[in-house]
Amino acid sequence: MSVTAAQGFEASGVAVALKSTGRPDVAVVVNRGPLKVGAAVFTSNRAKANPILWSQQAVADGVVEAIVLNSGGANCFTGSFGFQTTHQTAERAGELLGVSAGDVLVCSTGLIGSGDEVFRAKVLEGVERGVAALAPDGGDDAAAAIMTTDTVPKTAVHVGDGRTIGGMAKRAGMLAPGPATMLVVITTAAVLAAAQADAALRGATRVTLDPAGFTAALREVCSDLARQLQGDAEGASHDITIEVVHAASESDAVEVGRSVARNNLFKAAVFGNDPNWGRVLAAIGTTDAQFDPYDVDVWMNGVRVCTAGGPDRPRDDVDLTPRATHVVIDLRRGDATATILTNDLTHDYVHENSAYSS
Amino acid sequence: MSVTAAQGFEASGVAVALKSTGRPDVAVVVNRGPLKVGAAVFTSNRAKANPILWSQQAVADGVVEAIVLNSGGANCFTGSFGFQTTHQTAERAGELLGVSAGDVLVCSTGLIGSGDEVFRAKVLEGVERGVAALAPDGGDDAAAAIMTTDTVPKTAVHVGDGRTIGGMAKRAGMLAPGPATMLVVITTAAVLAAAQADAALRGATRVTLDPAGFTAALREVCSDLARQLQGDAEGASHDITIEVVHAASESDAVEVGRSVARNNLFKAAVFGNDPNWGRVLAAIGTTDAQFDPYDVDVWMNGVRVCTAGGPDRPRDDVDLTPRATHVVIDLRRGDATATILTNDLTHDYVHENSAYSS
Repeated sequence: MSVTAAQGFEASGVAVALKSTGRPDVAVVVNRGPLKVGAAVFTSNRAKANPILWSQQAVADGVVEAIVLNSGGANCFTGSFGFQTTHQTAERAGELLGVSAGDVLVCSTGLIGSGDEVFRAKVLEGVERGVAALAPDGGDDAAAAIMTTDTVPKTAVHVGDGRTIGGMAKRAGMLAPGPATMLVVITTAAVLAAAQADAALRGATRVTLDPAGFTAALREVCSDLARQLQGDAEGASHDITIEVVHAASESDAVEVGRSVARNNLFKAAVFGNDPNWGRVLAAIGTTDAQFDPYDVDVWMNGVRVCTAGGPDRPRDDVDLTPRATHVVIDLRRGDATATILTNDLTHDYVHENSAYSS
Repeated sequence: MSVTAAQGFEASGVAVALKSTGRPDVAVVVNRGPLKVGAAVFTSNRAKANPILWSQQAVADGVVEAIVLNSGGANCFTGSFGFQTTHQTAERAGELLGVSAGDVLVCSTGLIGSGDEVFRAKVLEGVERGVAALAPDGGDDAAAAIMTTDTVPKTAVHVGDGRTIGGMAKRAGMLAPGPATMLVVITTAAVLAAAQADAALRGATRVTLDPAGFTAALREVCSDLARQLQGDAEGASHDITIEVVHAASESDAVEVGRSVARNNLFKAAVFGNDPNWGRVLAAIGTTDAQFDPYDVDVWMNGVRVCTAGGPDRPRDDVDLTPRATHVVIDLRRGDATATILTNDLTHDYVHENSAYSS
């Protein structure tokens, strides 16, 4: 049911030939109320696409009536014409739904630089047909329509303590921060003020917090979607969980985890089932985090391969053949922790990202 | 002739079975004088190998008599035993050459974490046999003995204005800064004070300076070796030159160039001969450099594919099939420039770094 699991929401997915495959490529999600509260977090990338520039303004008042999403082409780096396309998308949806365009968010994913007249005409057609197709059980159609290189749709539903939270997500070309191309829509009938929704969303999307109540449930949905994204990452053969413990600060823990997560040599080693902890320490060495390279321990899949910056158990003791790969880095400097998810660097990753323009 | 091109130097390369292939794996380079001036630059990585910790101290007084280098195993993250191995390597070389151990630098490359008794015994044997084999024309032997995944040795000689500069280098697993595993030795009979040698080396290794005289010649040797490293990079099919122009500052230009250079999506696109400038802008967007995403131009192999953050010439106009790939990024913010070299992300890169432990 994805985004229509919670009461009061309708959704749809239609095909308007943005994708050459003919698969669904425009999704509409509508909040029928009574509350119209919305919150959003956006990429930290400074080169933001037109729909992000628009949606950041649209969500600022805490009111969201609807979201229009397209796959099959990203309206990004398309200049003022592209911004007008985004604007017209929100206007058309607003007219058809009888709401203000300023309460309609827009998302767009696919090949960067898609925003010509043909693209605009197809997206606007998608808005019309998508609004006409809205249904209380349309969540799965919407989840299918936002797929790009995904092999399966990603949806999650949490029911408990009298609240329902539903969500859908599309694949990230890179799970690392920055140039991610992830889209996630989460809906709930829980009664929240805009500030509460915003705080809960920010709390749930920071993995290192210790949330309670609604935020904990929301975090569960986010984690569920994140694991699905990781499990369907482009060309990956290992899902790597990097757990940094005993860091001096949370930012140190995150910096160390991300440095390891984006290290190609380490990621290629995991692909080769090689517990190459030297590459882990080399990645840590590029950070500004508090650590002493001769006072760091590293575990791989439960085996301590490095103690105090020197070799411990032999490499052959480590079995990296399972898809789930668990790396623990003990910085021995404090009490902060962070967990970063990533994937290995594989032949299929290179193939997908060289043969497929996105 | 590599490091023995200049008068007063001798070198050798011997095989002591650190490499399972039986190829040469220990090199010795000796400065017979009369001047014994030395300077060095080291990795910015904070997790430094034992030979780096040693050599940083040894070179601090500006005097270098000899360098011992081994391939087939990196004495890194090997604890206090590994540091003793480095120390004994310098001591043994010092004894045999009749110089202070404190004037002998040590370098070590190969699989991280190599430093057990067997490794130590082989390296010390290499020192003895290497010193015995020293010859005024031994430069090429030394260049061969420092190879790891290199397919060809890298050497360079500059002769001009009465000065000779010779050099050798071994492949970098990653050309990006930080976890590089590059070793370079450069020799000259030019008469320099230690401070001059140090300044010239730092000047030559910063690509964005405008050096003159000896520094210019030294830079030429460094550039020559850098191009050879790039041309023999692991599994690469494209040599990518990223030129950032009109940046607000040199650090901005370098930050932007490096961000693009380490972006896997961009590097995979180049492998696929796809002029995906959207991935270039996405990489720039992750930096803190001064720029406006809607005021950036991007050229690929001479074709302006992006103007003011929007599409310009069609992708089909760009021919990315040649190995040499030239990307120009115009930030339109100032007068600073930087040039960053990198390679594409290929199937062979993944293969070498997953199947080969280093």
